[in-house]
Amino acid sequence: MRLLLVFAALPFLMAAEDAGMPKPKFTSDGKLVRPEGYREWMFVGSSLGMGYTEGQVPTKPTYHNIFIQREAFQEYKRSGKFPENTMLVMDVLNPGKDVSINKQGSFSDGFVGFEVALKSKKVDGGWAYYNFIGPTPGKPLAESKAFEKDRCWNCHNQHGAYDNVFLQFYPVLRDARPVAKSGH
Amino acid sequence: MRLLLVFAALPFLMAAEDAGMPKPKFTSDGKLVRPEGYREWMFVGSSLGMGYTEGQVPTKPTYHNIFIQREAFQEYKRSGKFPENTMLVMDVLNPGKDVSINKQGSFSDGFVGFEVALKSKKVDGGWAYYNFIGPTPGKPLAESKAFEKDRCWNCHNQHGAYDNVFLQFYPVLRDARPVAKSGH
Repeated sequence: MRLLLVFAALPFLMAAEDAGMPKPKFTSDGKLVRPEGYREWMFVGSSLGMGYTEGQVPTKPTYHNIFIQREAFQEYKRSGKFPENTMLVMDVLNPGKDVSINKQGSFSDGFVGFEVALKSKKVDGGWAYYNFIGPTPGKPLAESKAFEKDRCWNCHNQHGAYDNVFLQFYPVLRDARPVAKSGH
Repeated sequence: MRLLLVFAALPFLMAAEDAGMPKPKFTSDGKLVRPEGYREWMFVGSSLGMGYTEGQVPTKPTYHNIFIQREAFQEYKRSGKFPENTMLVMDVLNPGKDVSINKQGSFSDGFVGFEVALKSKKVDGGWAYYNFIGPTPGKPLAESKAFEKDRCWNCHNQHGAYDNVFLQFYPVLRDARPVAKSGH
């Protein structure tokens, strides 16, 4: 009987787990509070030294490792849509070179800080963008005010392959999208 | 009363979740069956074009994105030890360049295949190494025979910062190690 009740309760427990998607928290003046634990979310892609301006040479190429809440990913994989409160976190790391036995190339080494894209019906355009990179590498800001819309949103909206997101750079998201699987 | 039973059952349900760590599966002749779903495991680090031989220029630099079972990570974070059946998967991807708005640098783009390090008391030295990269990029092998011990194990054992693992290249594992936190 006890076991039966446990199994009867399973769907509720699972629903509770879905409801456990890490949600954005805000200060009283509307800044986003630094999300914690995002490195245990789901990873969707990495890059090194990306730059979007012809001829520009980045002075110091950095690794970008991108994460999304696991629950947001599962919903995306199921429906092809990013749910409300989806957060994509772009972790920025300095490259490590000539460390230990490594003689060529580099690896994502020292944490610098991160930026966040937040899907929210409360903001004009449906997505807000935040920078948590502070003056000291590895010490991200405690809170962040959203960028003005013309700073990030425009480019994401114009060039992001789907719903303001650069799917074209995130192979895991690209491949998991249900419509992509059916050839559309 | 029903609710009380549910809460009483929670520890058992959580234990069942731990027991759900993806385990290695083997063919009857001892080959490792290709692990599935590892891109939903936990990500621990990325690299581009790593090479270990002085003066060697890799003909085609690839991204390596490294994953570990989430349950193995949680145990490692708690105790500092990788549990039996820990798998570290090195996903190999070709870089994408000049795609969409990208003008500099590159991103991890096309899946090539992957390699696996498996912690197992059944093998001499405690770790076995497998290659699932097949002749066709994006079509990893269905099964793989462990490398001879002198192919991978020696270098991992000699140069891996901890327990045959290149912690020095995986900032998430490096930072999560309890002994590292206490300054040792």
